[in-house]
Amino acid sequence: MKRIGILTSGGDCQGLNSAIRGVAKALYEHFGADLEIYGIKNGYHGLINGVYRKMEPIDFSGLLIRGGTILGTSRQPFKTMQDKDKDGVTKVEKMKKNYKKMKLDCLVVLGGNGTHKTANLLSEEGLNVIGLPKTIDNDLWGTDMTFGFYSALNVATDVIDRIHTTATSHSRVFIVEIMGHKVGWLTLYAGIAGGADVILLPEIPYDIDSVNRELAKRASIGKSFSIIAVAEGAISKEEAAMSKKEFKKHRAKMKQPSIAYRVADELRDKHPNEIRVCVPGHFQRGGSPCPYDRVLTTRIGTSAAQLIAKKKYGYMIALKDNEIVPVPLKDVAGKLKVVTPDCNEVVTARQMGICFGD
Amino acid sequence: MKRIGILTSGGDCQGLNSAIRGVAKALYEHFGADLEIYGIKNGYHGLINGVYRKMEPIDFSGLLIRGGTILGTSRQPFKTMQDKDKDGVTKVEKMKKNYKKMKLDCLVVLGGNGTHKTANLLSEEGLNVIGLPKTIDNDLWGTDMTFGFYSALNVATDVIDRIHTTATSHSRVFIVEIMGHKVGWLTLYAGIAGGADVILLPEIPYDIDSVNRELAKRASIGKSFSIIAVAEGAISKEEAAMSKKEFKKHRAKMKQPSIAYRVADELRDKHPNEIRVCVPGHFQRGGSPCPYDRVLTTRIGTSAAQLIAKKKYGYMIALKDNEIVPVPLKDVAGKLKVVTPDCNEVVTARQMGICFGD
Amino acid sequence: MKRIGILTSGGDCQGLNSAIRGVAKALYEHFGADLEIYGIKNGYHGLINGVYRKMEPIDFSGLLIRGGTILGTSRQPFKTMQDKDKDGVTKVEKMKKNYKKMKLDCLVVLGGNGTHKTANLLSEEGLNVIGLPKTIDNDLWGTDMTFGFYSALNVATDVIDRIHTTATSHSRVFIVEIMGHKVGWLTLYAGIAGGADVILLPEIPYDIDSVNRELAKRASIGKSFSIIAVAEGAISKEEAAMSKKEFKKHRAKMKQPSIAYRVADELRDKHPNEIRVCVPGHFQRGGSPCPYDRVLTTRIGTSAAQLIAKKKYGYMIALKDNEIVPVPLKDVAGKLKVVTPDCNEVVTARQMGICFGD
Amino acid sequence: MKRIGILTSGGDCQGLNSAIRGVAKALYEHFGADLEIYGIKNGYHGLINGVYRKMEPIDFSGLLIRGGTILGTSRQPFKTMQDKDKDGVTKVEKMKKNYKKMKLDCLVVLGGNGTHKTANLLSEEGLNVIGLPKTIDNDLWGTDMTFGFYSALNVATDVIDRIHTTATSHSRVFIVEIMGHKVGWLTLYAGIAGGADVILLPEIPYDIDSVNRELAKRASIGKSFSIIAVAEGAISKEEAAMSKKEFKKHRAKMKQPSIAYRVADELRDKHPNEIRVCVPGHFQRGGSPCPYDRVLTTRIGTSAAQLIAKKKYGYMIALKDNEIVPVPLKDVAGKLKVVTPDCNEVVTARQMGICFGD
Repeated sequence: MKRIGILTSGGDCQGLNSAIRGVAKALYEHFGADLEIYGIKNGYHGLINGVYRKMEPIDFSGLLIRGGTILGTSRQPFKTMQDKDKDGVTKVEKMKKNYKKMKLDCLVVLGGNGTHKTANLLSEEGLNVIGLPKTIDNDLWGTDMTFGFYSALNVATDVIDRIHTTATSHSRVFIVEIMGHKVGWLTLYAGIAGGADVILLPEIPYDIDSVNRELAKRASIGKSFSIIAVAEGAISKEEAAMSKKEFKKHRAKMKQPSIAYRVADELRDKHPNEIRVCVPGHFQRGGSPCPYDRVLTTRIGTSAAQLIAKKKYGYMIALKDNEIVPVPLKDVAGKLKVVTPDCNEVVTARQMGICFGD
Repeated sequence: MKRIGILTSGGDCQGLNSAIRGVAKALYEHFGADLEIYGIKNGYHGLINGVYRKMEPIDFSGLLIRGGTILGTSRQPFKTMQDKDKDGVTKVEKMKKNYKKMKLDCLVVLGGNGTHKTANLLSEEGLNVIGLPKTIDNDLWGTDMTFGFYSALNVATDVIDRIHTTATSHSRVFIVEIMGHKVGWLTLYAGIAGGADVILLPEIPYDIDSVNRELAKRASIGKSFSIIAVAEGAISKEEAAMSKKEFKKHRAKMKQPSIAYRVADELRDKHPNEIRVCVPGHFQRGGSPCPYDRVLTTRIGTSAAQLIAKKKYGYMIALKDNEIVPVPLKDVAGKLKVVTPDCNEVVTARQMGICFGD
Repeated sequence: MKRIGILTSGGDCQGLNSAIRGVAKALYEHFGADLEIYGIKNGYHGLINGVYRKMEPIDFSGLLIRGGTILGTSRQPFKTMQDKDKDGVTKVEKMKKNYKKMKLDCLVVLGGNGTHKTANLLSEEGLNVIGLPKTIDNDLWGTDMTFGFYSALNVATDVIDRIHTTATSHSRVFIVEIMGHKVGWLTLYAGIAGGADVILLPEIPYDIDSVNRELAKRASIGKSFSIIAVAEGAISKEEAAMSKKEFKKHRAKMKQPSIAYRVADELRDKHPNEIRVCVPGHFQRGGSPCPYDRVLTTRIGTSAAQLIAKKKYGYMIALKDNEIVPVPLKDVAGKLKVVTPDCNEVVTARQMGICFGD
Repeated sequence: MKRIGILTSGGDCQGLNSAIRGVAKALYEHFGADLEIYGIKNGYHGLINGVYRKMEPIDFSGLLIRGGTILGTSRQPFKTMQDKDKDGVTKVEKMKKNYKKMKLDCLVVLGGNGTHKTANLLSEEGLNVIGLPKTIDNDLWGTDMTFGFYSALNVATDVIDRIHTTATSHSRVFIVEIMGHKVGWLTLYAGIAGGADVILLPEIPYDIDSVNRELAKRASIGKSFSIIAVAEGAISKEEAAMSKKEFKKHRAKMKQPSIAYRVADELRDKHPNEIRVCVPGHFQRGGSPCPYDRVLTTRIGTSAAQLIAKKKYGYMIALKDNEIVPVPLKDVAGKLKVVTPDCNEVVTARQMGICFGD
C-alpha cells in the first residue's frame, strides 16, 4: 500500500486543483487500489497540527477547471520553522512526527519559493518530498515556468485592455498595479501584452523624471493618454540607494496604500492630464486556470506520480526547454529567478519604445 | 441636406461606440447622400469650444465591438453651464452659437444623468436635441435599462467569481468594491450574480455590527470565508444620520481611500479571519460591450435616427417593457432611479439569505 | 415537513443549476429544518421510473457558476405521455404514483415548451406543479425572457465576432448556423449583436436570390466579405409553400447535414467569393451562466419558493416588464412565442441595413 | 531610406496583426523617418500582381488586440510557383520583378509551412526575405512555438469545457472536432486541457474497437458520458494501411462532411448512449490574440526588425528554449513538426488514462 500526502502552501493561484488532479489521477492509474491519498488541510499548518483526511477518487473529479485549492492553504514563514512552539517543540519536529504517524511514503507539496525552502528542509530531515512549482510570479529558480503565471497574465492583460479604452476616451494617464512584490515578470509580460507605454519593475528602479519625460514626449506627438504598468514591488532610484532600514522608514511615512498611488502622487505635480489608478489586486490569482496552465499542471502532476513510482524523492518538478524534468530541491530552495535588465523580454520592450523609467 | 451633430459626455462606458454606429448607420440608411454627420470632440467641451470634424461612413465601421468612445468624452458639471466664462459668455450661449454655426438639424448626446440635464437645458433653449441613456449605473429615470450596465455587470461579476476561489482557499473575508457613487444597482446585481454573502448599498445604510453578526453566523455553521460586495457610495447608519456638512467632515478625517478599506477597518477589530480588499475600479467600464448592450444600443441608436427622420426632438430614447420609446427630456432630466428597499431584486436577495447590514 | 421534488427536463442550458440553487436556498431560508428536497434524475424519466434521491443543503453549494444540470435531463415527448407502456400503464399514471409515493407537496420542473405541456397535464391531473422557464430559444409564451437565452447569445455572438476577423482577412462569405429549430430569437439577436449582414429565420422565409443580391450589393461598394447568420430552422420561400409531407420529402433528399451547408450550396453557384460554413452546435448551450441569467434564475427560483410557501400551485414563473410574476400553466402550455416580422428587433435590423432575404 | 515590404499568407490566425505591429514599431524605433513600409495585399497574390500600398505609423495603431490581418491573406500553393501564367511568366518571376520595382530592402512574410517554402524559394532567388512563424497548428519545424497556437487552444478548450456540461447533463458521448489536417498538436493540447477521455490524432491511427472498449470501460464504472477530441486529419488504422490512391477513393465514398461525423457513425452501431458531434470550425482561428501570443509576436516582430537593421536575411525567426533566434529558411522550409507517439505530452495523456484508440 502506497500512502501519499499532498498539501498546497502559500498564496493560492490558478492551477492548484488541476495539479492536484494530475498527481492523483496518474497515481491511481499507476497504483490502482494499492494507494491511499491523504489531503492535508491548509498547507504546512495542517501537517504541523495533524489535520488531514483520506481522499477518494471522486474528490479529484471536476478539478481541471476549478480555481483555488480544495485543500485550503496558508502562509507559514520559513524562518519560524525551527522556532519552538509554546509546547517546546519545533514545527519541523511536529511535521516529522505527523508524517510518520500518517505512515506516508511521500509528501507532495505545491507552492512557491517559501514552500520549497521548507520542502527542502523536510527533505534534509529525511522525509520523502516532491515539490510542484506554483506561483503567478514565475520567480522560482530551476524552472522555465511556474503554473499560475499565464492564467494571472490573462487577467492582468484583460485589465490593461479595458483600461485602454477608458484612458483613450478620457485622455487620461492610467497607472495599473500588477501583482509581484519581489519580481516583475507578470508586470513585464502584462505590460508588453497590454501595450503599456511605461513599465516599472522591482528589478529596474525608476526615476520619476524619466517617466514624466516619456509622458511629455507622447503628449508632444499627439498621444493624449498613457498606460503605466507598475509592479507592486517597484521602487524608485532613491529608494534603491537606501539601506533596508532607511527604506522601511521611508515607506512607513507614506500615506498611500500601494505603489500605484505613490507613483500617481509623484506624477501629479508635473503632469497636466488627469491621472487615475487601478489596483485590481487578488482577483488576478483567482478563477479557472487557462489551457496553458492546465496542460502544464497535468504534465507536472503526472511527472510527480512517476517519480513516486520510481521512489525518487527530494525533487522539484520543472519545465526546462519544454521538457518536464526533476531538479534537486537543494538546488532550487531559496533562490529567486528575477528579471534581468538585459533579458530578451526587456530588450524587446525597449525596442518597441516602452519606457522603464531608468 | 441633414446635418447631425453627435457627442458623448460624462464617464465613458461600454456601448458608446456601438450606439454611435447605430445612430449613424440608420441615418445613412434613411438619408443616404443627403446627410452630414459631425463628430463633436470630448463631449460638451467640444461644443462649447467648437471642436468637431465631419465624419465619413468609414468612421463608423468596426465600432460594434470597440470599447470607449471614438469621439472622446469629458465631464462638464451642469451647475457651471450658466456661469460666465472669462470672456463673459456662458457655456450655454457658446454651445448655442456653435450649434448654429454648424447649422445642425439635431444634436445627439450620449450620456448619463448630468448629460441629460444639460441636454434638457439646450432643448429648452430651442436646440433640437435627442438623448441616449448611457451609464453603467442604470440610474436614469424614465428607462428600464441604460446601456453599459450589463457589460459592467459582467466585469464586476467576474471579479467576484475569481475572488471567491481565493477567499475559500484562504478562509478569508473579501470586500469587493463595485462602482456606483449614488446608486447601488450594479453592486446589487453583481452581488446576487456573484453569490455575495453581504451587499452594502448607498440606498440601504448599514450597521457594521449587523455585518459582523452575519459573518459570525456563517463561521458558526462552518463557512470560513465570506464575500462582501460594497458599492462605492455605501454609507453607514451613523453617516446617514449626519448633516451634509457633518458627513463631509467625517469622511475627510478618514485615512482610507475608499469605502472597501473603511469597511475592512471597521470589521477588523471584531473579526478573527483575515480580511482582504479588492477595488477593481475603472476597468469595470472598459472594453467591448456585451451582446445585450450591443443589441440595446443598436435599437436605441436606430430609434434616434427615426425620431430625426420624423423631426421629433427633445426626447431621450428609453427602453420600457422591452419596447423602445421616446420620453420627453424634461420628464427625465435631473431625476435618479435608485434602488428601493422593497424592489424585487432586494427582496430576492433577502430570500436567498443575503445580508444588507440593516 | 414540506417535501419538494425537483427535476430538469428537455435540452440542457446555462442557468439550470443556478435556478435549482435559487429554489433550494430560498426554500431552506423559509422552511429551515422542516423541509426535504428530492432531486429526481433525468427529467420526467426519473419521475416515471422512481429514480430520485434526497438532497442535502451542501448539494446546492457551488451551483451558481456551474453549467448543465446536476439532476441530469432527458427528452420525453409530450405526445407519448398517455401511451401505455409495455406494462399497460401510462407514463402519466406512473408519475402520479411516484409523486404520491414520495409524498410530495410540490413538484418543481425546469424546462421548455414540451416540459411545460407535461407540467400542465400533471397539474390538471391534480398534482401540485410549478414550472420554471428554461430555454436558449426564448420561445416560451407568457414570459418576456427565459433563462439560458442571454448565456447562449454570448456564445453565439462570440462565434460571429471571431468569424468576422477571418472573413475579412480572406474576403470570404461565412454562414454561421445558430441554434433554433422553430424560432429565431437567438439568431436574430446574435445577428444584430455580431454585426451580421444577412439574417435568415424560421419565421421569415428567404429567397436565395434576394440574399445573393445583397452580397452583390456589398461587393459593389467594396465590401469583400459578408456574414450570414442562419437559424437551424430557417426555410426558403419554396419550402414555406410546401405541405408538411412535401417538405419532409424535400429535406430528406438533401445531402447536407444542416441548413448552413444547404444555403452555402445554393449560394455557391452564383457567388464568386469563397464561401465557408460554421456550425458551432451544442456548445452554445454549455458552460457557466452569464450574470443576467444568474440574476434571472435567482429571482425565478426564489419566487417559486414563495409560491410554495403560499401553497399556490399550477403556475409557471415568468418575467414580465421586469417583475417576476406567476402565470397559470394552462395559459402558457403548448404556445410558442415566435419572432414576428414587425417586432422592434426585426425593424431595428432592417433600419441598420441587415437583409432578411425576403 | 529603408524600404520594407510585408505580407501575410495562408490561413489567417490570431496574432498576425500583433506581429505586423511588432515589426513596424521596432523598425520605426530603429530607422525613424528613414523608413518606408509597404503593405502587400492578400499574401503572395499581392506580390505577384503588384497590389500594395505605403503604410503610415498610424496604420499600425490598435493592432495588438485585433484579430485577422489588416493586409488580407490568401493561399498560394507552393507547387504552382514555377508554373507559367497565361502570360508565359512564372509567379516567382513576377514576384522578383515587383520586389525590384518596389525597391525593397527586405520582404517580411508571415505564414505557415507553405508560406515558408515559398519564402525560401524567393531567398534562393536572391531576394532578402525574413519569415515569421504563424499557424494555429504549431507544426513549423525549427521553432518551439508558432503564434496563433495558444489563442486557438483557448478557443478549442472553451468549446470542450462547454460541451462537458451538456455531455454530463444528457449522459452523452460527444465528439469534438479540432482543427489540424496534418498534425495533432492543437487537438492533443485541447484534449488534455479540456479533460477529454479519448484523443484521436493524424499521427496515431485509431482502431474504433479500441475507442469503443474505452467507452464501455467508462460506462462500467458509472461514467455515463464521454468526450472524444478528434483532429480534422485523424485516420483509422485501416486508412493508414491504404495507398494514397486507395485512401482518396475511400474518403470520396464517405457521405459525412468531416471526421467527427464519421467517427460518430462508426461508434453508433456499437454504443448505447446518445452520440453528438460538434464541429466548431474556423472560429478557432479568429478574434483577439491571447497574451501569450501577443508577447510572442512582439518578441518575434522586434527580432525581425533587428535582423533587418543588421542586414541579415534568409531567416525564419524562431522560439527556442525561450530565446528568440534566427534559423536559416533553407533549414526549415518544407519540414513539418509532427506529434510523436513518445513525446512528453502523449505520455502525459496516457498516464492520465486518456485513450488514443491505438
